[in-house]
Amino acid sequence: MIIDCHGHFTTAPPALGQWRERQIKAFEGSGARVSPDELRIGDDEIRAAIENGQLKLQRERGTDLTLFSPGAGKMAHHYGDAETSLVWSRVSNDLIARVCGLFPDNFAPVCQLPQSPGASLTASAAELERCVTELGFVGCLLNPDPSDGYWQAPPLTDRVYYPLYEKLVELDVPAMVHVAMSRNDAVQGTCAHYLNGDTTAFMQLCQSDLFRDFPTLRLILPHGGGAVPYHWGRYRGFLLDRGRPPLEESLLGNVFFDTCVYHKRGLELLTDVVPAANILFASEMIGAVRAVDPETGHRFDDTKALLDAIPSIAPDDRRAIYGGNALRVFPRLVARLQDKEKEAVR
Amino acid sequence: MIIDCHGHFTTAPPALGQWRERQIKAFEGSGARVSPDELRIGDDEIRAAIENGQLKLQRERGTDLTLFSPGAGKMAHHYGDAETSLVWSRVSNDLIARVCGLFPDNFAPVCQLPQSPGASLTASAAELERCVTELGFVGCLLNPDPSDGYWQAPPLTDRVYYPLYEKLVELDVPAMVHVAMSRNDAVQGTCAHYLNGDTTAFMQLCQSDLFRDFPTLRLILPHGGGAVPYHWGRYRGFLLDRGRPPLEESLLGNVFFDTCVYHKRGLELLTDVVPAANILFASEMIGAVRAVDPETGHRFDDTKALLDAIPSIAPDDRRAIYGGNALRVFPRLVARLQDKEKEAVR
Repeated sequence: MIIDCHGHFTTAPPALGQWRERQIKAFEGSGARVSPDELRIGDDEIRAAIENGQLKLQRERGTDLTLFSPGAGKMAHHYGDAETSLVWSRVSNDLIARVCGLFPDNFAPVCQLPQSPGASLTASAAELERCVTELGFVGCLLNPDPSDGYWQAPPLTDRVYYPLYEKLVELDVPAMVHVAMSRNDAVQGTCAHYLNGDTTAFMQLCQSDLFRDFPTLRLILPHGGGAVPYHWGRYRGFLLDRGRPPLEESLLGNVFFDTCVYHKRGLELLTDVVPAANILFASEMIGAVRAVDPETGHRFDDTKALLDAIPSIAPDDRRAIYGGNALRVFPRLVARLQDKEKEAVR
Repeated sequence: MIIDCHGHFTTAPPALGQWRERQIKAFEGSGARVSPDELRIGDDEIRAAIENGQLKLQRERGTDLTLFSPGAGKMAHHYGDAETSLVWSRVSNDLIARVCGLFPDNFAPVCQLPQSPGASLTASAAELERCVTELGFVGCLLNPDPSDGYWQAPPLTDRVYYPLYEKLVELDVPAMVHVAMSRNDAVQGTCAHYLNGDTTAFMQLCQSDLFRDFPTLRLILPHGGGAVPYHWGRYRGFLLDRGRPPLEESLLGNVFFDTCVYHKRGLELLTDVVPAANILFASEMIGAVRAVDPETGHRFDDTKALLDAIPSIAPDDRRAIYGGNALRVFPRLVARLQDKEKEAVR
């Protein structure tokens, strides 16, 4: 079973984005709220968006299951206030739940959190609990920069995040650390802010003892970990200089990297440098880059074709990267798949 | 001849840092200025700092010449006002000129610029001109984030930077795009902000036509280009998606990467992915990481030992990376070396 741990509903029906625009404009204009009931999306619209989008590519590429979350850039936590973000998160997460209800064999739900600049994380912990316990979600996205491009929040290792981490541990679900949009003209979104977010979060973890406080907390760094594997020696040296324990001891029991790296040489580096137990297959299709690479004939984000072409990955490691690790990092996925099997037997 | 294009005076005599502290405190306290005349550093102190520091390592590693600039983190452009930054830049640059005067065979000077949040770049252009024409400098450092960790400035491709670029072109010297310190608790300096700065600057260039306006402008991205070579496919795909010309056409005539990547696998990726003509040897010794790597027995920043151990680099490419490219990118270095030869003949 090949599990893609990183997919967003980037092909959502336009009504979703239109509702969000109305929500933002109403709040910015007069502080008014727009009811979620004003958003109407039919099952047929969802089916069309998925069948012509992510499901089509799943089938073409031979992957089985995508961990599916709302559009990451569109989380855009800086807009409005905490209530804006809460309502938007619920709307987005409820739509993801419907996708995964319509296509239970192909998609498992991952939620966004109602983070908001300066807000506590208690609302995020509550929305996580709602999604996991009521709607069967298996993980969440955690934005390390709710200011969306200006890094105004404390690091992820600050105690302000602890209510969320307590809930993640209690529910036994991981978080993917994923920034949202950049509203900073100097810092482009998908090719700068995204990668910087991964690099910055990793370094926050290197400087802290977060995993002493939460030994079972699991965090996934998307986009191959930003700059991290390419600069693995820099981080190893940093820890040595400061007399801190090595990465293997301090981080690699809790931190995982996805494979959203869009050329073979990059993926060779990732799979050479990072232990296979810490790598989760992912494509982020249909996402940051949509073109076909003229050098390979595949889309840039067809990371399965790229990984298939790397012979140095041992068979056991390949199985772990393609799905085994995801089942370990997302244990609720195992329960979900077992429930589905039971239903199929009935 | 092996040229290290990236070295900072991180071992400067303590009097320099003490003067800078007084400068900052006086301005923050009452807006007062501290005269550069209050800084006294003897030639013997400079000799000791260099002979026990960068020169010792040059000899041990078998490199010949370091392009030497003030401490990058210590540029700290956010402190004080434009005048603070101008005086600090002159003090720092004058000290670099003295180092290179005392050790003309081993060091060539690169200046910092008196950037300041919100200030125009005319003072930077003037200080560049002073350093190049009066003191024999061959390049400069350009900070893409004078806010030091919050990215408050427009992108490097904004017209506000054009007076500096005009001067760089007129004087035929390149700029290394290097952030200074991070004063943002969420974004550590050497292992997050530095790499993010490189990634962000590269993406700014990908989005613009800067080099149409300045076809001979040359920019060096330090730290192996941040996340860029590891995510080369992402950038290629981004340009294709937007119908922009490929990297070879749009950027690689003007943008160069240094080799400050502190493990062999990272340098293999760099030298595989980026054309050899765009790579300049560098170590940034004595800098971000000072430990010896127990896996190699060399210091992490001994990039020469790492590159020497990569057999896939063709001999011509190796010569270009180790020095040929630097002579091309820093043409004033050629003139400087020729002057020295003439002096030696006399």
